[in-house]
This record gives sequence, C-alpha cells and structure tokens, in this order.
Amino acid sequence: MHVTGYRCTHCKREYAYSEDMLTCEHCGDLGILDILFDYTAIKKEFTRETLASDRTNSIWRYRALLPVEGHNWEQFLRVGWTPLYRSHALERSLGLKALYIKDDGLNPTASLKDRASVVAVSRARELGYKTIACSSTGNAASSLAGNASRMGLKSVIFVPERAPKGKVAQLLIFGANVISVQGNYRQTFELSAAAIEKWGFYNRNAGINPIMAEGKKTAALEIAEQLCFNPTDWVAVSVGDGCTIGGIYNGFNDLYKLGLLERIPKLLGVQSSGCAPFVKAANNNGKLEPAEENTLADSIAVGVPRNVEKALRAVRESFGAWVEVSDEAILSAMRTLGSTEGIFGEPAGVAATAGVVEALSKGLIKQNESVTVLCTGSGLKDVSNAMLAAGEPFSCPPDLHALEKSGRIGK
Amino acid sequence: MHVTGYRCTHCKREYAYSEDMLTCEHCGDLGILDILFDYTAIKKEFTRETLASDRTNSIWRYRALLPVEGHNWEQFLRVGWTPLYRSHALERSLGLKALYIKDDGLNPTASLKDRASVVAVSRARELGYKTIACSSTGNAASSLAGNASRMGLKSVIFVPERAPKGKVAQLLIFGANVISVQGNYRQTFELSAAAIEKWGFYNRNAGINPIMAEGKKTAALEIAEQLCFNPTDWVAVSVGDGCTIGGIYNGFNDLYKLGLLERIPKLLGVQSSGCAPFVKAANNNGKLEPAEENTLADSIAVGVPRNVEKALRAVRESFGAWVEVSDEAILSAMRTLGSTEGIFGEPAGVAATAGVVEALSKGLIKQNESVTVLCTGSGLKDVSNAMLAAGEPFSCPPDLHALEKSGRIGK
Repeated sequence: MHVTGYRCTHCKREYAYSEDMLTCEHCGDLGILDILFDYTAIKKEFTRETLASDRTNSIWRYRALLPVEGHNWEQFLRVGWTPLYRSHALERSLGLKALYIKDDGLNPTASLKDRASVVAVSRARELGYKTIACSSTGNAASSLAGNASRMGLKSVIFVPERAPKGKVAQLLIFGANVISVQGNYRQTFELSAAAIEKWGFYNRNAGINPIMAEGKKTAALEIAEQLCFNPTDWVAVSVGDGCTIGGIYNGFNDLYKLGLLERIPKLLGVQSSGCAPFVKAANNNGKLEPAEENTLADSIAVGVPRNVEKALRAVRESFGAWVEVSDEAILSAMRTLGSTEGIFGEPAGVAATAGVVEALSKGLIKQNESVTVLCTGSGLKDVSNAMLAAGEPFSCPPDLHALEKSGRIGK
Repeated sequence: MHVTGYRCTHCKREYAYSEDMLTCEHCGDLGILDILFDYTAIKKEFTRETLASDRTNSIWRYRALLPVEGHNWEQFLRVGWTPLYRSHALERSLGLKALYIKDDGLNPTASLKDRASVVAVSRARELGYKTIACSSTGNAASSLAGNASRMGLKSVIFVPERAPKGKVAQLLIFGANVISVQGNYRQTFELSAAAIEKWGFYNRNAGINPIMAEGKKTAALEIAEQLCFNPTDWVAVSVGDGCTIGGIYNGFNDLYKLGLLERIPKLLGVQSSGCAPFVKAANNNGKLEPAEENTLADSIAVGVPRNVEKALRAVRESFGAWVEVSDEAILSAMRTLGSTEGIFGEPAGVAATAGVVEALSKGLIKQNESVTVLCTGSGLKDVSNAMLAAGEPFSCPPDLHALEKSGRIGK
C-alpha cells in the first residue's frame, strides 16, 4: 500500500498515516480527509505497460492506487471495469465531437457505489473488523450489504422507517442486519453514528470515511484507460453528497501526477433543480447552504452534503462547471439513453446526460468538444420512476401502417 | 461464419444453410432446427492459444462458434463474460468438492437472455432487417428492446394486457413499440407470429429461431474457459422453454468436438414444481404433456415449451438428471445466495441452486462432486418476490447484544 498520510480538505493540516483516523482531529466532521499517496513508488509498478499486460477486469487492476492491501482480491464481487460505450447517435443529435457513456449500473449490485463498498469491505477485513455499518436506504446500503456478504463480513444498516419496502427487502436478501429507525434520514444517520462508535463497527458512511472517494476514483481511472489515456474534454457526473465527483477528480489527478495524463478533463457537476446546494454554493463563493430535497432523483437528493470541499474543488481545479436540471429533463434523459443506447439508468444515473444537454444550451460545453457521461446506477433499482418516464403501450390491433409512416418500424 | 447447414431435432432431416429458414420444412413448428458448424475450419482459428491472447470481454470472443458474421461487434452492448464466483461457504455447507456460481444477472439488461438477443440483433442487421419482434413480457423482451436500441434497430414487442406495468415501462424506456394484446400469453404469441409473418420483421421468438440457443451457448463456453477447460462434474440450469439448457449443451458439445474438452459436464435440469413438464416428460419416455403455470418463478413458467427435444437431449446425452423444486425452496435459495455470496437473483435465476440442494438430497449429485450453477437473471427484475423471501427488519433501538450472541454481528 502506497499511502503516506492524510490532509484535511478544510484546514489543510497533514497527518501521518494511521489506521483508525477518519476525519481531521481539529475540524471534526467538517474535516473530511484526503488520502496522500507516494507517487514515486507507484510509478515503479504502475505504468501503461503493466496495465496493458494486466488481465484483471475489475477495479483491482488499479490496486497500486488504492488505500488497501488488496489481498485475495479475486474473491470479491467483480466490481468495476464497466463498459464505456461510444454513442454515435446521441453525439450526432447533440452536435458533439464525441460522446461516451460509462454504464456503472453494470456493477454487481447495479450502481457505482460498489466501487466504494468493495474497498471499504477490503479495508475492514484487513483491519480485523467483523462488522461494517452505514445508514442509507439506497445504493450505498445495497452495495455494502452485497459486498460484505460475499466476503463473510456482517453488515448493520440503519434505515428510516419510511424506507421503501422493496429497497429494504434487497438488504435483507443480502443477509444485512437492517435496523428500522423511527425518524428521518438525519436522525437515522445520527443514530447510526452513535451505534458505530459504541460498538466499534467499521464505518462505511461515505461522508466520513476518506477511502470511499478513493474507491469511486476507479471510475475515472477506467475512463482514462478505456480512452487510451486521451480522455474527453469533459466528464459529466451527477452530484449528491459530493463524494463521487470528488473521487472522479482524485482519479484523474492521480494519473496526471503519475505522468499518464497530460490534462485533467473538465468536470461537469450536475444536480437536480429540486436539490442543488452545490450549484448555489458555486455561485455564492463556495458557501454551502442546506437545501430542500425535492426531486425524484433520490440517489442525489442530499440537502446537507458532507463532501463539500472535495466536490467544489473537483469542478474548480478542473476548470469545469456546475449545472442543475429539472426532473422533467432527467426523465427525458432516461428515455433518450434507453431508446438510443439501450442503457436503462435510474434518475440520478441519467442526470449527467441531462446536464450535458443543459451545459450545451448554456454554452458551457461547446459543440466541437467531446464528453463522457457517467451513468451511476441501473433503472431497475426503482422502476416506479421509469413508469413516470415511459408513456403508454399501443393498443391492439396496432396500426402498423401508421407506425411505419412515423418511422417507428421499418422493413 | 462457419455454419454448414441445419438438422431438424425432430425428424433429423438435414438442410443446406439458407438465410430465411427458421423451422423444419416437414415438421413445421415441431421441427426446431440445430445449426451445424464446420469444426475443421473452426479448429484453425479457435484454440486455447488464440483465446488466451484475446482480450475481448464479451461473447464475441467466441465469434468463430456463432452463426453470425459478427461485424463491428464492439458497437453492441457488452453481453457476456459474466463473473464465475467460487462459493467456498456454500460448498462447505453442502459438502460439495467445489461450487461455482455464474452470475448472468450482470448482463446489460440483467439476464442471460441478452446472449440470445445480441446475436439475434446482429443477425437481423446482417440480413438487412430494420425491425425485430417477439412476444414476451419478461427477460426476452427487455433484452431484445435494449440490444435493438443500442444498434439502431426498431423493435416490436407484443405483451398480454395483464403484463405488469413495471416490466412494460422498461420496454418503453428502450424505445420499443409495445403492443398490448387483449388475451393471454398464448394468444399474444399467436398474434405476434401472424404480425411477424405479415410484416416481415426479424423473429426473436426463442422457441422458433435456432440461433437463440447458439447465443445462449456462450454461457457454457465461458464456464469452460473460466475453469481452464476442466469444468465441474455438473452444471445446473433452470428450465422453462428449454432453449437455455439446450444451448448450454450445445456449447459444451462444441468444445468437446473441437477437442478442447475431454468430457461434457452432466447437466441438471431444474424446474419449479408448479410448472414441471420436462421433469414429467423425462419420467414418461420423453412424452411431454402441457402443464399448469403455477409458480412465482415466472421466467421459467412455461407450460407448453417449444424446445422440447433440445432440452431433453441436453440432460440425456450429458448423463444428467431432472429435478423439480418448490417455490419455498426457490425463495430459500434466493436468501442463501444473497446472504452467503452477495448475489441477488430472481426466482428463476436461483432455481438452479435450489435444484442442487434437491439433487444432493436425492443422491443424484454425490457429495464429492463439483457443481456450477447458472444464475440466469437479477433479482432487481421483480423485487416483489424478494419481499416475499426477505423477512422483516429489526425495530429500533435494536438489541445489539442479542444480535452479537446469535452471531449476526461481531467486533
């Protein structure tokens, strides 16, 4: 492992590496940490040549850049190395030079969160923990439950009592200990934090544990490698807590520091208009105010995000931009990706695509530029939103002549 | 393409290769065809060495054995090369020498059916079709819609009016022309057949088109290669129409004929007790009677299967066995795979695992034998069944001491 220490994203204090440290000693929960790597050592074992001869088709091909020992990684669920599709149809209709879509819904529990969870599970095992915990009802929870199950680790997951039964059922199928809390998400989080501290579970709450963003950065490493280290001008990412876009920046930044990239792509941070604290903070000198959570894109509905500095830095230092998109635009993007690319994303998963349309219309992305969008989760996670987006079937007997005339079928 | 012709599975007549032939001219719909390959030619380009140097991580690594030209295969959705996990925990508890699980729920539309659909879409394009059609509400339909969308082909999908709205929504998101038929599944199938014939669509109905089983055989090719051409004693497969297990046999048989396998694994055909026409036919000299469709494993609830001879032959010629399992055993297998392996399968997906338990208890599989189970689809496809299997969360505050005592958490 090539970790040399931590740096607080808030006060910039540096710390030597220690196994149990989660946040900055001076700043508390505000002091989300960066993990610092020894790039000189990494350079010796991690090159284009070593990658080209590595057949590992999972995130473990980047183990030199991960803050874990990575023992026995063949036993884990196969996370990562998801496909990067070029979208000729969509790039033509949008007038882009090139458009790529990274389908991270094809991870084992159907979301990008598996990248963080598998690294957390790996680290928890290395440190001798038997149980790993978080508070969530969404992709973080199911990915923790699945990845922990595969590796024989117990999981404890705190959910608010109003959590949808279908999502809770997935956690129970994975054998998680699901604790239903009488309260809202914030109260559930606080109770989980207290229980984790008292019981000494490993903490997978992404807002706190800095290795989460490092797991997620593997999506950026893959995008870079899949594009032969010549990434698109832009990479668009939907943003909730800020951990994912922070990780994406870290990944490109790692490769830049290793001399494997000549530039870091501009990052487009995309939020839903119904919950856009980062967009507002970017227009307010980086001062983030709590926001309502009023969007159907529940995986990015985070009114009080915790990875504030990592997310704002990602866009700022990559010379990127922030945009917000309406729920209608998100549902429209769901139809577009489905009907032109065969990719069925959840609302938060397709929001980045809606963001590209918005950024083009505002002139933030230029028509001769190239873009990669990250689709962060599968639409199968919550089919009720697809039902909102889908429209109605044709009744029978169908007027096939009319369908032919309108170009919907052809011989 | 190394196809030399067809042979009728019913009357054994052979035919020269022709583009438009779907079923035997003499036997009609009873005469499902086998596709015949020129193994001498294939041997020249398809060896352990060529495979070892092929980085293609999709079914197209086996293009020499597929009945398509396979042009531009990098443009398709990335189908296949799904993970094969060794299950140390489960093999210990069952007393098997080794147990592997192939998670085909990680295909792009979350089921094994993508293997057939992507080959069908490839063939339809090669033959100049613009539209491809089938009747289904399940995995065949969503995989057709998704794979067609990605390749710019139109799709027409006939569904009975009682089809669940969530499943129809997925088809509509993929841009399919969904035709809602006032009638049951059989009437829907018949109407689709008439429309396909009249309008000249490409026919993806798996019961009819012989290239479907050839697409599905890639799961067997992968299992063999992932086990270094030394497959387990048994491979367990859930069976509905019979096309999948027929394809699995074809895959192993191809490798055997090419000299890449020394033996074909014994195939365990697994049906639900609520719809087990093949199990009954195997006990009745191969005479298949229509069955009720009374099981929650809807993807294998096929009372009148069409690939009768292919499925019965697969088990007979591999010296395998047939078993049936209850819906309770299927839900139990769903919990077992989830909580020990982190794999969330749909009922039909996990039925093969339940079948292994049943076959062990009947002495059909011996304790010192090794087994691969094929998990054919993701549990996210229909979460209502997971809710039946899942049980209830713990209320709060949880008695963590009691959880610790029972071994459900640990420090």
